[in-house]
Amino acid sequence: MDAMERAFAEARAAFGRGEVPVGAVVVQDGRVVAASGNRVEETRDPTAHAEILALRAACAATGDPRLTGADLYVTLEPCPMCAAAISLARIRRLYFAAYDPKGGGVEHGAKVFDHPTCHHVPEVIGGLRESEAAQMLRAFFQDKR
Amino acid sequence: MDAMERAFAEARAAFGRGEVPVGAVVVQDGRVVAASGNRVEETRDPTAHAEILALRAACAATGDPRLTGADLYVTLEPCPMCAAAISLARIRRLYFAAYDPKGGGVEHGAKVFDHPTCHHVPEVIGGLRESEAAQMLRAFFQDKR
Repeated sequence: MDAMERAFAEARAAFGRGEVPVGAVVVQDGRVVAASGNRVEETRDPTAHAEILALRAACAATGDPRLTGADLYVTLEPCPMCAAAISLARIRRLYFAAYDPKGGGVEHGAKVFDHPTCHHVPEVIGGLRESEAAQMLRAFFQDKR
Repeated sequence: MDAMERAFAEARAAFGRGEVPVGAVVVQDGRVVAASGNRVEETRDPTAHAEILALRAACAATGDPRLTGADLYVTLEPCPMCAAAISLARIRRLYFAAYDPKGGGVEHGAKVFDHPTCHHVPEVIGGLRESEAAQMLRAFFQDKR
């Protein structure tokens, strides 16, 4: 299973738990070191986005707060909180699926990586399997109405 | 003890642990519901900034991921990750001490609250006991050299 497929599996599992369906996976040296879905509702923690949980789990697994050379795969453009955490964790490449004009902080809004004070800027590859991720999010929010 | 003094006490304790000296306190209904210092080194977690830990602890204490009506006191201008988390947690007022031109994300850099896609913008009061906080940070980084 490739890393983005694993991120989609985490997003689908989050959907099943009634969470906004987003999944994230950290890959280092060709190996998945952490994978998580969004758990904001379950944990009542507004910071429990898929990316934050995956980054924290990867740091715990490796014992290193800097994930040098690691890549993050996520099904949605990260929000500004997650984008800044990705920079703090020294992620090498960020791959994401759907763009998020309303909440994203990479290509939209705060554009966290686009400021000279951003100390570490990952390579960014957006729009992978974009329509599939967007469709899952639409289905989720239609269910909620 | 007022809330900012409590945040300074958390910052001094962080200094004593060898952490970048930043402290944060969440106050709701006139009561301190959470207080934390920076624990990035201790926990090997790049997201373990004082603000994130205090917000998570406040949500855990109240059982609510939205800290409506709560205020956050922090000894340093929050970075973009923490600023975005403050917005997600629906903090009413953000009080901070030292400005951070190099790493801040409120008055500097990404200016997280200054974008129309930022769904919740707290009232911001910066520069309280600014020189005292800046002096503590300078002392910390001088020790490290």
